[in-house]
Amino acid sequence: MAAARQRQDNLTKPRGSLGRLEELSIQIAGITGNALPKLEYKAIITMAADHGVVDEGVTLYPQEVTRQMVYNFLHNGAAINVLARNIGARVVVVDMGVIGGFEPLPGLTCKMIDFGTKNMAQGPAMTRQQATDSINAGIEIVSSEKNKGLDIIATGDMGLGNTTTSSAIFAAISGYSPDKTTGRGTGIDDKQMAHKIKVIERALVTNNPNPKDPLDVLAKIGGFEIGGLVGVILAGAAHRIPVVIDGFVSGAAALIATSLCPQVNDYLIAAHVSAEAGHPLLLEFLNLKPLLNLNMRLGEGTGAALGIFLAEASVKLLAEMATFSEASVSDVVTPEGRG
Amino acid sequence: MAAARQRQDNLTKPRGSLGRLEELSIQIAGITGNALPKLEYKAIITMAADHGVVDEGVTLYPQEVTRQMVYNFLHNGAAINVLARNIGARVVVVDMGVIGGFEPLPGLTCKMIDFGTKNMAQGPAMTRQQATDSINAGIEIVSSEKNKGLDIIATGDMGLGNTTTSSAIFAAISGYSPDKTTGRGTGIDDKQMAHKIKVIERALVTNNPNPKDPLDVLAKIGGFEIGGLVGVILAGAAHRIPVVIDGFVSGAAALIATSLCPQVNDYLIAAHVSAEAGHPLLLEFLNLKPLLNLNMRLGEGTGAALGIFLAEASVKLLAEMATFSEASVSDVVTPEGRG
Repeated sequence: MAAARQRQDNLTKPRGSLGRLEELSIQIAGITGNALPKLEYKAIITMAADHGVVDEGVTLYPQEVTRQMVYNFLHNGAAINVLARNIGARVVVVDMGVIGGFEPLPGLTCKMIDFGTKNMAQGPAMTRQQATDSINAGIEIVSSEKNKGLDIIATGDMGLGNTTTSSAIFAAISGYSPDKTTGRGTGIDDKQMAHKIKVIERALVTNNPNPKDPLDVLAKIGGFEIGGLVGVILAGAAHRIPVVIDGFVSGAAALIATSLCPQVNDYLIAAHVSAEAGHPLLLEFLNLKPLLNLNMRLGEGTGAALGIFLAEASVKLLAEMATFSEASVSDVVTPEGRG
Repeated sequence: MAAARQRQDNLTKPRGSLGRLEELSIQIAGITGNALPKLEYKAIITMAADHGVVDEGVTLYPQEVTRQMVYNFLHNGAAINVLARNIGARVVVVDMGVIGGFEPLPGLTCKMIDFGTKNMAQGPAMTRQQATDSINAGIEIVSSEKNKGLDIIATGDMGLGNTTTSSAIFAAISGYSPDKTTGRGTGIDDKQMAHKIKVIERALVTNNPNPKDPLDVLAKIGGFEIGGLVGVILAGAAHRIPVVIDGFVSGAAALIATSLCPQVNDYLIAAHVSAEAGHPLLLEFLNLKPLLNLNMRLGEGTGAALGIFLAEASVKLLAEMATFSEASVSDVVTPEGRG
């Protein structure tokens, strides 16, 4: 990081004038242990699963949309496919537990834990073993993707009901009340929103998750794709690969990952603050500063894909710009300066 | 725009969930008159000139840096070269009036008005004829670039002293006092900052520019590259090409352009809010909402290059995503919905 900082200060621009792009390049140098990092191989890992809590009527779209959208990912019709293609990234589509499952399909990785979680408003969403299994699945995905070349990871999610689950996780771990951690997800109205908050309150009372035990939180009020993303985040950090965190659901996974292992935080890049109401507070709680604020709230890894673009731009600037001496450009003339 | 809006609402995502990227694609549809716009040919027009006001000691780097940086642009060593390459854009480097001029160089377009402006703290920076000539030069550049294919334009600037000039322009046109419109440019300290504000106040008193006459403002307290960018902006709008505005100096050019022709505003995309202190207020005065806030303050078109990436992403999403019916994905199930 010191070597990257020194190089930034010698590039042909006023010091600090590339702002957050300078900081980002230095962070990535630290993560990778390379003062001139390259981000050639980029993977957006988009994990899908269903949530039993959808039975409570917390979302605007029917539950089968999770499954339909997995097909859409595989046919390159979704937003994440377009954004990935635009930055030269691959999308790794993972079934972590979609209701009904899938026949073997080209491009789909099956890590199915179960056909959706159980309804957390009535009892635990999954067993503790399933929580561990989902995290391990995410770790395996990163190992396997690393063999294909992997310089940066973006997290993505698809799962009707998963903003409800994520709000519950955030409330349980932070201690904030659900009305602070909850947003409108797919776009529900005031009445549905009040109902969604009540459902989350009920899930917390019913399950009493232990905030000191992140696995307990994941098991009781989590989701399979969230567990999978916890594994992706942990494994990314372990392999010294920068992990670009998407929106609210990926943020809930980051919360569990950093609760399990606080050092992971340094390996995370928060792509954007989303329009989901609880997201600014979640990022603050994670002590992450988002790069973008574009009022997006789609998930899939869409915000993170834009974040990968900025990360790549930042390291290309670090590597490819000329220094003052290379370009015969004069440096500053103040007494404090070097020029 | 209505056709683009309708298509956005039929794409496989909750309506509005791509936030500002949806709005951006619809704006570009309106600008180009094409419901499925393509942004294949991208040009960053970076205009360089010197400023007589540098004699007053308002900047941190020596004046010859303007000239040195033009060579750096031509040798692909500057930040703008790296960012342009990363998005597949060409950089059009224009000498609008750098002290000393240049021998004929591959890649450099000469539209030199004079070897730098005169010191505005002592009298008019240029004649009214030179102001008109600089605008016409920018218009000619766009015409000539359009022949090579041009779907989107980014503005960029290089000129030691040009944040001083831009602050003066903003103060003159808005009526705000210079302490509100002025920032630290290349990174001056408190003492130099107080001096910079005094210099701008002196320039305003000495020249008494008429805020109702944008050409008078440009002539008395402007710069040749700023005039050139006014022409670029006017011509971009006239040719129905979206113009992505970079930071503070490009913003001053946008202010003169929209003062000359208010309809131009609809054709502008504000890429980012820079770290230059007067920029948030300038964007507010222009009624433009920036896409990015990355604490950048380099100029050259660097922020605008990132803005082009977002613009391209937005129109690719509009064109390439599947609709609900194409992908057999269920739409909303509320009584208000169509699904």
